[in-house]
Amino acid sequence: MLTEKPHLSGTEQNHELGRKLTEFWTEVGLDHVTLTPYKVQLSYPNETSLSYVELLDGNGNSVYKSNLTEPVLTPEENKPDVVPPFNAYSPPGNITGEIVYLNYGRVEDHLYLERNTSLTVKGKIVLVRYGKIFRGDKVRQAEKRGAIGVILFSDPDDITSGIVDKVYPDDWWLPPSGAQRGSIYLGVGDPLTPGYPAIESAYRKKDPDEYMPGIPCHPVGYGIAVKIMEALAGIEVPIDWRGKMNVTYKFGGSFNTNGWKAHIFVSTAPKMVTTYNAFGIIRGAVEPDRYVLVGNHRDAWVFGALDPSSGTAAMMEMSRVMGNLLKSGKWRPRRSIVFCSWGAEEYGLVGSIEWVEHYTKVLGARAVAYLNVDIAVEGNFSLRALGTPLLYQSVYSAARKVSNPNQAEVAAGRTSVYDTWFNTFPWQAYDRPEINLPGSGSDYAPFRDRIGVANIDIRYTWNKKKMKLSAYPMYHSVYETFYLVDKIMDIGFKYHTALGQLWVEMTRQLADDVILPLNVSDMVSLIKDQTDNLLTRFGQLMENNGTDTAVLRSAVQNLTNTVYEFVKAVSSVDKKDPYAVRRVNDQLMNVERAFIDPNGLPGRKYKHHLLFTESNVNSYAGSSYPGLSDALTNIEQGENVTEQWEVVHRHFAVVVFTLQSAQSVLKNVTDFMFTY
Amino acid sequence: MLTEKPHLSGTEQNHELGRKLTEFWTEVGLDHVTLTPYKVQLSYPNETSLSYVELLDGNGNSVYKSNLTEPVLTPEENKPDVVPPFNAYSPPGNITGEIVYLNYGRVEDHLYLERNTSLTVKGKIVLVRYGKIFRGDKVRQAEKRGAIGVILFSDPDDITSGIVDKVYPDDWWLPPSGAQRGSIYLGVGDPLTPGYPAIESAYRKKDPDEYMPGIPCHPVGYGIAVKIMEALAGIEVPIDWRGKMNVTYKFGGSFNTNGWKAHIFVSTAPKMVTTYNAFGIIRGAVEPDRYVLVGNHRDAWVFGALDPSSGTAAMMEMSRVMGNLLKSGKWRPRRSIVFCSWGAEEYGLVGSIEWVEHYTKVLGARAVAYLNVDIAVEGNFSLRALGTPLLYQSVYSAARKVSNPNQAEVAAGRTSVYDTWFNTFPWQAYDRPEINLPGSGSDYAPFRDRIGVANIDIRYTWNKKKMKLSAYPMYHSVYETFYLVDKIMDIGFKYHTALGQLWVEMTRQLADDVILPLNVSDMVSLIKDQTDNLLTRFGQLMENNGTDTAVLRSAVQNLTNTVYEFVKAVSSVDKKDPYAVRRVNDQLMNVERAFIDPNGLPGRKYKHHLLFTESNVNSYAGSSYPGLSDALTNIEQGENVTEQWEVVHRHFAVVVFTLQSAQSVLKNVTDFMFTY
Repeated sequence: MLTEKPHLSGTEQNHELGRKLTEFWTEVGLDHVTLTPYKVQLSYPNETSLSYVELLDGNGNSVYKSNLTEPVLTPEENKPDVVPPFNAYSPPGNITGEIVYLNYGRVEDHLYLERNTSLTVKGKIVLVRYGKIFRGDKVRQAEKRGAIGVILFSDPDDITSGIVDKVYPDDWWLPPSGAQRGSIYLGVGDPLTPGYPAIESAYRKKDPDEYMPGIPCHPVGYGIAVKIMEALAGIEVPIDWRGKMNVTYKFGGSFNTNGWKAHIFVSTAPKMVTTYNAFGIIRGAVEPDRYVLVGNHRDAWVFGALDPSSGTAAMMEMSRVMGNLLKSGKWRPRRSIVFCSWGAEEYGLVGSIEWVEHYTKVLGARAVAYLNVDIAVEGNFSLRALGTPLLYQSVYSAARKVSNPNQAEVAAGRTSVYDTWFNTFPWQAYDRPEINLPGSGSDYAPFRDRIGVANIDIRYTWNKKKMKLSAYPMYHSVYETFYLVDKIMDIGFKYHTALGQLWVEMTRQLADDVILPLNVSDMVSLIKDQTDNLLTRFGQLMENNGTDTAVLRSAVQNLTNTVYEFVKAVSSVDKKDPYAVRRVNDQLMNVERAFIDPNGLPGRKYKHHLLFTESNVNSYAGSSYPGLSDALTNIEQGENVTEQWEVVHRHFAVVVFTLQSAQSVLKNVTDFMFTY
Repeated sequence: MLTEKPHLSGTEQNHELGRKLTEFWTEVGLDHVTLTPYKVQLSYPNETSLSYVELLDGNGNSVYKSNLTEPVLTPEENKPDVVPPFNAYSPPGNITGEIVYLNYGRVEDHLYLERNTSLTVKGKIVLVRYGKIFRGDKVRQAEKRGAIGVILFSDPDDITSGIVDKVYPDDWWLPPSGAQRGSIYLGVGDPLTPGYPAIESAYRKKDPDEYMPGIPCHPVGYGIAVKIMEALAGIEVPIDWRGKMNVTYKFGGSFNTNGWKAHIFVSTAPKMVTTYNAFGIIRGAVEPDRYVLVGNHRDAWVFGALDPSSGTAAMMEMSRVMGNLLKSGKWRPRRSIVFCSWGAEEYGLVGSIEWVEHYTKVLGARAVAYLNVDIAVEGNFSLRALGTPLLYQSVYSAARKVSNPNQAEVAAGRTSVYDTWFNTFPWQAYDRPEINLPGSGSDYAPFRDRIGVANIDIRYTWNKKKMKLSAYPMYHSVYETFYLVDKIMDIGFKYHTALGQLWVEMTRQLADDVILPLNVSDMVSLIKDQTDNLLTRFGQLMENNGTDTAVLRSAVQNLTNTVYEFVKAVSSVDKKDPYAVRRVNDQLMNVERAFIDPNGLPGRKYKHHLLFTESNVNSYAGSSYPGLSDALTNIEQGENVTEQWEVVHRHFAVVVFTLQSAQSVLKNVTDFMFTY
């Protein structure tokens, strides 16, 4: 039902699926259902004049022209309303020029090009492979340095783990004709109503904001990219710039044949549409004003059998099971449960951002956690979780209870999902399965960045140790079909089932436990590790520049001591005293709120969650909006040193203050003030 | 004890008073006391080179020079460390030039000058009388239009209600030698750490922000102002520009004697100091994590016998009484009570702003109300309250219980404070005493503007119907002494007692009532009236420009309906069900939070409370940062029409959305979403 038709954001098909979900939720017995519309600016190709990339000879005649659409490989893709490959929010354009190949398009790739060749991207079209950083940042970095257009391509090195024998429809590997769609807007939410919900009466900006790309961009598959690379002249690139297409990778700057040019035509343009979120609510029996939020987006680039409909299927099953329990009269959760089906996630989390902006006050006061499943199954190897540390124990506890869907693993004695998870992705330092921090890749982001709600995203994934893919192979292509899931990736839907069981058990615990299962000890451990990483890497540099890093260490130590006292106090709380229960639960709920700074991160007005962004201290991704470690890396690289030190000083002070805020929230409530 | 010595912000004397308060609170039996230090940038005159205003003849010789200090009139003023008159945050300067008299220095005064004379303030020193608008806005408007300096003076018309026979020390009227000190910074809080607490580790800005005045300014009394006015040439000003000094008021622009000039020397300069807030806490018996905050500032320009020490005395008595009850074991409040003694209020609410910035997360989650007394007694006529409507019923209820301190009123049958209040300041539309909306004049502002806490400010005042004073006569002068209070204004301290009783009873109700005494019906009535006022005055103008004002009416109606349902639901809440009690109390506490927009008002980054600012639709004060009605007035006046319409559209949309947010908070908690 979910993957029968394309259900792109802002289309009638996706609206229809939203209505079907609310009907389903009513039928299975949820207490309230509703659809919320937002009027937003999305972006679509012009269907009567599709985008393409071509090579022109010296006379301006076409030598090679890309397909306008991805060819049909099974009957399943042969449906109306398949949107062709495009990059949402690209401006339209008609560009002719030379091509420079730029690896992943990171800042370090630009620097390498500038320092080791006579080339720059100025006035050129850049050919960039997908992977490593957000595609929007690739375009932004190219634009900043004067490029006139961008071609993004999926290299086999990043998407099929090298050369493979069989591709879709015979295996899960991306065929040469598959291209990755995706937004290149660097902002989030509706571009015309930043900070406010895109309701009918909203104020809409006249001009796009500074996060909107200014040069045209178009995505292609490796079947097309290899044709372009074959035509490029120039010297050969270094080893780590070489992908796995069967061609010599060159920097380009000119073509093998004199007079040749590249031509990009992009018809993509903005359009006002209505997008719908669908909701189903179970009223809590004791604390209906505390919400456990579970969510998944509904919109897909095309059929979305993995992204997002595998998650939608799991959410439907979960709501059906809980609805049955309600109807039977055997169970009603202590707290309310809200099922959320987001529209327009693919355009920059538009549905969830607008909703969070719409109900900030209510959610800020009542949301205890947000459990996201964007994709339930992108592989059938093991579990992958991204989450804030308050929820680590929650997912571990649930994973121990879910039977292992992999019979070989069961036979090897690993009977639970947890067992395989721990065995495949161990986190040595903690003697548990590894959990990474959430970025901004799915609908958990607004809950974390705007309100400070503990959040997690879970899925079944592939063997990431063996296969270094930038995404699962079929990511955002037309070939993400029901056939792919049903016949290749999850025969019998066992991994969907296990993921759904994990999700529903986490939800139940968060909704039913008298004391909220949010673990502050894990939070403070992570903070300590992040601080150690940061200071090991940059402490000397900061001290040399007059920053008293001991202030940060001492803030971490004070928070650690307070957490210790708090945990002790919670263990002796009288669970029969509702005011005492509510008091500690409010502290647990609010501690993640303490990391929200409404002033925003440096250069990131609408990203408000501090500190957990600081873990990846070795990254130098060329994000346009640097945090503390990005700024310090920039300083090491000699980029804008004076300006970046100001960022460091400001951000460092805010981090210290934020740790103190978190400490205040967890202190004895009549002793929340402290002097230093 | 409080008024014995000057206790200016940032001085050892004011720190000492803070320590004495915490010792007092410990002694009377409060549970916790603490002092919080903030390291802030304040502003002081150079004591070895005091500021003055003088008139120079054509040879540059001094013809008249102002006193450097206010003369001693009773032994009480004869103390060390009296700071001479100055305007805090004025830059230092040494200015010579012509003088233009500009009435109150509002935008409309500039426009009158420009349209009806050949003069402008460009390149001139402006002589402006205190009153009508904030002194900082007077300086800002003059600076914007090119003035080089400002002399502020207290005109008898505004400060002594015209010519009076007797002045201090024989009566409460300001003598000619008295001058009004005061800050002219347009921002609030520590200028170097906007948005964050000025703790030791804070990031401090290198440059002052855009709210800092750029031209020197100095305040004088009418004894000095009359000398200046006598020397001015030019045509006579219109009637409403004329004050009550015994002189012909002229526009100036030149002097009667050829070649004369005015000279202002200002030595005022910024200085880093530590300011202290003092706190005393009573732990609540049932809900210690809900705070009733009561506060008063402690710092004074000089002796501060009215402002603020009359309030400090009342707060000490209140804490003593409550402490005694605690010690006796007869009473402990249901919720916690926090007594707050602020430092550096006079410099722009510095102590309270920094504290609110410091503990935003905790206060946002737990503060149920803030009850401010800046001045307990500024007159002995009747009560005056400024407050958000949630607290109207609370102050009415308490005022009915407090015996009338005025024996003549009691004899006339008005036995309670409420009776005289209602008789003297009736609010016809509502059949109750009038309560006005709080501005930004005291420490309630950060609670309202940053967090959205219901707040009120109460005091005894003079007969405002009979005497149109811009402030009580002795406001911010050296003559605000204990003698003034003890011998002239409140003999026997009866009005202090009544005000303290009112304050303590409001505090007790808010701390003890099972259901919080916050009245949402009054809130929605006020909103309806504000909307009616706005649309009566500007509705046609807005409609003509394409604004659908029906959207606003409908949002008000929807909120009204929800309030009706909510009030009905509260009346049937089971008061023995703690979760149900907590649920409705959280809704009551959070509804004022719903009016906070972290994006700030248009042009006012750190002022976040919407809507209640919109009541005064007939003002045209020339505030530098217009709200909806200011912007519409600007449009009517033909000022920056295009830009101001954008302000109107943006702000109108936010007001509509804010009403919907408030509605969400009060709706059934599992039905908080709605479509339109």
